[in-house]
Amino acid sequence: MLKINNNYLKLENNYLFAKISEEKNKYIQKSDVSLIDLSIGDVTLPLVNKASEGIIKANNLLSNINTFVGYPPSSGHEFLKEQIIKNDYLNVKAKISKEEIFISDSSKSDISNILDIFSDKLNVAIQNPVYPVYLDSNIMRGNNILYYSSIDSLIYEIENNDDFIIDIVYICSPNNPTGEVVTKKQLEKLISLALKYQFIIFFDAAYEAFIQENNIPHSIYEIKNAKRVAIEFKSYSKTAGFTPIRLSYTIVPKEIKINKDITVNSLFKRLKDTKYNGPSFLSEYAIYNVYTSSAINELKENINYYTENTKILFDFFKSKHLILDENLCVNSPYVWIKTPNNMSSWDYFYYLLDNFMILGTPGIGFGKNGENHFRFTGFGKREDILNAIDRLK
Amino acid sequence: MLKINNNYLKLENNYLFAKISEEKNKYIQKSDVSLIDLSIGDVTLPLVNKASEGIIKANNLLSNINTFVGYPPSSGHEFLKEQIIKNDYLNVKAKISKEEIFISDSSKSDISNILDIFSDKLNVAIQNPVYPVYLDSNIMRGNNILYYSSIDSLIYEIENNDDFIIDIVYICSPNNPTGEVVTKKQLEKLISLALKYQFIIFFDAAYEAFIQENNIPHSIYEIKNAKRVAIEFKSYSKTAGFTPIRLSYTIVPKEIKINKDITVNSLFKRLKDTKYNGPSFLSEYAIYNVYTSSAINELKENINYYTENTKILFDFFKSKHLILDENLCVNSPYVWIKTPNNMSSWDYFYYLLDNFMILGTPGIGFGKNGENHFRFTGFGKREDILNAIDRLK
Repeated sequence: MLKINNNYLKLENNYLFAKISEEKNKYIQKSDVSLIDLSIGDVTLPLVNKASEGIIKANNLLSNINTFVGYPPSSGHEFLKEQIIKNDYLNVKAKISKEEIFISDSSKSDISNILDIFSDKLNVAIQNPVYPVYLDSNIMRGNNILYYSSIDSLIYEIENNDDFIIDIVYICSPNNPTGEVVTKKQLEKLISLALKYQFIIFFDAAYEAFIQENNIPHSIYEIKNAKRVAIEFKSYSKTAGFTPIRLSYTIVPKEIKINKDITVNSLFKRLKDTKYNGPSFLSEYAIYNVYTSSAINELKENINYYTENTKILFDFFKSKHLILDENLCVNSPYVWIKTPNNMSSWDYFYYLLDNFMILGTPGIGFGKNGENHFRFTGFGKREDILNAIDRLK
Repeated sequence: MLKINNNYLKLENNYLFAKISEEKNKYIQKSDVSLIDLSIGDVTLPLVNKASEGIIKANNLLSNINTFVGYPPSSGHEFLKEQIIKNDYLNVKAKISKEEIFISDSSKSDISNILDIFSDKLNVAIQNPVYPVYLDSNIMRGNNILYYSSIDSLIYEIENNDDFIIDIVYICSPNNPTGEVVTKKQLEKLISLALKYQFIIFFDAAYEAFIQENNIPHSIYEIKNAKRVAIEFKSYSKTAGFTPIRLSYTIVPKEIKINKDITVNSLFKRLKDTKYNGPSFLSEYAIYNVYTSSAINELKENINYYTENTKILFDFFKSKHLILDENLCVNSPYVWIKTPNNMSSWDYFYYLLDNFMILGTPGIGFGKNGENHFRFTGFGKREDILNAIDRLK
């Protein structure tokens, strides 16, 4: 008889954002007051013109027998890979080749499914707090989790703690939810440690478009030797507002070897070929049209709108003395606050929902260190952000 | 230091269709003669009108701030689930609920990733020959494979072979590549055996639209008690020609329990919530528009075109006395032949490529029993099918 993967028993009952969504639906059913949702980090501005135009072009191609194309390659079409190299890795010294790019429908899937190519019982370093997918997917795999609270503490642990032996380290920069960014100097240090202690860095650049400060790397491959130790995950969800149409890519350099003969790139290709059939041509063409129309600025306008939203939320919570570290919000589309009166983060969740009809994300959902903290998203509509502040005033 | 998932070392070096694609590209580079590709089962007709129209409608919704929607639920939108129940399960007595439908970008991903929720070292029954993803994904998981050559032999083994103890059985009906279908009576028997011996049936209905005979089930849920033991995988790739835009769904009934407290449905939901962000709104809306415009007939016209292609190929190879079992081709978009003079299937592959510039699929790629056999797809363009036959004459 079938048995369960026992690792699943170690998970929380629900995935964080699925639980929030359920609570939201419950609330909407029992009440007809307008709920303001500032919880899930989901974009609200429509697709930019050049993306919509790309979809129409792709649809025309697929509607004509002479231009129809079927299955994409499992790592996506070359026409888009060329644009990614040309646009996203223009200022990166290390050369990214097409065979190192895996275009996918979802960074979330790539960053969790890639674990399949490695043995289980790995030692994995995960920041606390951080995006919960890293933790959950590693629990499902039966890996051993070592937590770190900041990039500096990570570096300290690797250098000084003999028990902190790791196979993989996850870095989310800017960090979701806190907004912490990893500096050039820190990355240089981490890469030298990765070479010395032979671990791999999973670099999640989902929020790189929100970096405002100079000298903060947008890609880990801006740093020397990164291609020898780092895999980079890039989602179009936030940078291009593609949450409904699904697109991302993952860079797996050929330099990373798992032993003398086998590269991580070849294993990931085998995984993709076997378990995946490639991204949608419509979504690929949407961003292809943005790149080739030199319309990256259209995307930047949207980024600026969300950044302004975040600033409005930040200023409000600063006036309430709930901001912990002002520097943290500079490069992030989220505002990370401490809860008033040290309330538990779920208590504050229901307090806001019941009294102000505002939905946010409890900090503890991102890890134990997130307790007594709370995340608001700047991806909401401007009027919702302003209304939420009015209600809270 | 990182270690490899050793199961990967047990795989063939390349996934079957990735290897064929590589051989194709090599050949195209060295030659400028026109190659006819009848290998991969990929559609060639353009999207039907109502699907294209759906994409335009969806694109309009996403291009307007008032109608924009962001992330889909990880199992897809309810508006499409309602249409699936209404259209695809109209004649099925068992009630399928929305919570049992998981809309996805790819059946291939679902049928391989679902293994993650179960313990490893399962005993899995896989037909030989069959679609190679079942085998490869189970090797990756470290499961123990038991082969069966036909549905009748499967039933015989379960009933009479004390060593044939299984946790999961894969059924592909119509079978890719042979075209074998499972009858109502066989399914009734298998379901009763599943209840008796407590195994689960993975029913892959990717080619159900090609069933021509009456009394062959299009869904396993046409059979009594199926919801207690069977998971059904349905791809839009072949039925709606969606290979470039990616869409499928999987039915995981709530009745299937893994122990007293835990349903397979809840585990699959946890997997999806954690590792997946849902299908593209554009693809969902494409098929939604087909359903709600009562345009299923548009899809049927395409199916008929491919069926006619297959018939043309079938008649030709019949005239060459290379058809094994005439009944097998009736419900299939593929023609499955024995190779001339008992050639090995890869020898025949290169023989066809080098002498006729025709690409097909070597039978051994579908399992050992496929040796000395070869698959041609009816999904090609009519002119390619006719040209291929001219060349072979």
